[in-house]
Parts: sequence; structure tokens; C-alpha cells
Amino acid sequence: MEGSNTNTKTIVVAVDESEESMYALSWCLSNLVPLNSQNTLVLLYVKPPPPLHSPLDAAGYMFSGDVVGAVEKYGSGLVKSVMGRADDVYRNLVTNNIRVEKRVGTGEAKYVICGMVKKMRADVLVMGCHGYGFIKRALLGSVSEYCAKNAKCPVVVVKRPNHINC
Amino acid sequence: MEGSNTNTKTIVVAVDESEESMYALSWCLSNLVPLNSQNTLVLLYVKPPPPLHSPLDAAGYMFSGDVVGAVEKYGSGLVKSVMGRADDVYRNLVTNNIRVEKRVGTGEAKYVICGMVKKMRADVLVMGCHGYGFIKRALLGSVSEYCAKNAKCPVVVVKRPNHINC
Repeated sequence: MEGSNTNTKTIVVAVDESEESMYALSWCLSNLVPLNSQNTLVLLYVKPPPPLHSPLDAAGYMFSGDVVGAVEKYGSGLVKSVMGRADDVYRNLVTNNIRVEKRVGTGEAKYVICGMVKKMRADVLVMGCHGYGFIKRALLGSVSEYCAKNAKCPVVVVKRPNHINC
Repeated sequence: MEGSNTNTKTIVVAVDESEESMYALSWCLSNLVPLNSQNTLVLLYVKPPPPLHSPLDAAGYMFSGDVVGAVEKYGSGLVKSVMGRADDVYRNLVTNNIRVEKRVGTGEAKYVICGMVKKMRADVLVMGCHGYGFIKRALLGSVSEYCAKNAKCPVVVVKRPNHINC
């Protein structure tokens, strides 16, 4: 059974390509206790689902295996890049030993994050507050808004100072 | 100028009659750092606005000054009761000196809380997650949802374990 007993805590930080999520990670490391070897910091990155494509796309263009492979490689590069930046953030801020786990999910971020929080029985979820553009946010809602409402643990929505609304 | 420089922090906890808000306060005291004399814990209670009443109400009943006075007295009693419960929570959990301020606002909670956070330049807002009933929530939205989206600082939405959604 993972997480959530009185002696050990599981702190999940949702990270992505945004500056907001790195700020959220640094906020978590500076403001939440106790971050020590008793507890686990989980860095969770959610890749968008792979597009459902046929070799012939809607516009009639043929995509070779090379192109599909290149897109997938780009996705893997993105994971490495995000996790690398997260590494830099916590190495700069944490001096004691801290158990760090990295997890990568695939799918719609809000569902994957809430699912992971539930599965790991996380004690707290930390995430940045950043919306899509106005139209997309109006249609889809904000990921942080959904998680604050639905995740089965306390949720910290972190905003950068002077940042716009979620 | 209040709050928000690098050495002192202002932590606002929105408290009300609910168990959720007292749980949020205890979560804050156990999980946020540093709570010491350098920083200020602000307990904020928002009273609903006084009803706009004439001596003759819509149904034609006359309310005497006594009735109005009794309602106002009840409101003051509620403030004392909520702040008293909050006192009990932090006295049980905090052993070191901590600067505590109590503030009471009047009006619609979500606007008053966000306004106070802005005015005090709070570093973090902590609040319980509890909605109204389904219909009222659908019409009015949840206070925590609004604050997570609009407050000008990181917001912690705390849920009691096994609690329903906001």
C-alpha cells in the first residue's frame, strides 16, 4: 500500500513544460514540511495521449513511420527535459536527503493526475496554476481547477507572483 | 505595507462554522512552514452580509428592533464561537510563539477572502473544501473554487480524508 500513513508522506508535484510548474515545485520545497527521507516527493509528468492517426491523415497526406517515430521521440525528449529541469530545481533547494520518484503518465492531464493521487494515496498534490488561452479554458476548464475540486487530498494551487488568474 | 517580504510571511486561513475549515487550520499548522514569530497566521472569518430588510418584510410581517437585534447578536456569537474553536485548534498544535491575528469581514465570502488576501499581500491562503448542496453549488459555485482561481497567492484547498468533492 502506497502513501498516507502517519509517519510517511507522499507529496505529488505535477510538473510540465511551464514555468508555473517549476515555480510550484520550488514553492513546495520551500513551504511544505517535512521534506526528508521519511517522505517521498513524486514528480509526475503527464504526456498528452498519442494522436489517433492512420497512415493517411484527414487531409490525405501520408505519414511515414519516420514521421510518427520522430513525434514519439520528441515526446520522450520532452519528458527528459521536464524531469531534468525539475532535478535542477530540487537539487538547488534541498540540502538533506529526500526520496524522489519520477512518474510519467499518458492521457488527459486532469484525469491522470487525480487517478495517480488516488492510486498513491497522496497526502498532498501541488501544481502550478496556468490556463490555456481564454477560449480553450472556457471549453475545457483549467487542469488545476479540476484537480482542486476532484483530487482526493489537499491540493495546493501555486501562482507565480503577479500572475494572471488560472 | 503588510505581508510578503522575504523574511516574514502572512498565512491566511479562512475559518467558518464548518468542520472542514478547522481541519484546514490544523493541516496548515502541521504542514506549512515556517510557523514562528517571524510570521503571521491570520484567521479570517467572513460573516454573511446583513439582510436588506425593511420593518415590513415581503410577507407583510413586522420585525421589531428586538428581532433584528437578536439576529445581529446571534451573528456576533457565531464569530466568537468560530474564533474560539480556531483558538483551540492552534493552541493544541502549536508549541512555539506564533503571531496570530483575527479578522472578521462581512459580505460574500469569496470576494471578501480574495480582497483580504490582496490587501494583506498574503503569501498563502488556506481554506477548507466544502460546497453547498448540489443545486446551490451549481448556481453559485464553490467558495474554494473561486478563491483557487482568483486569489493573488498560492491557495491550499484542504479536504478531510474520505470527504466528498468540493
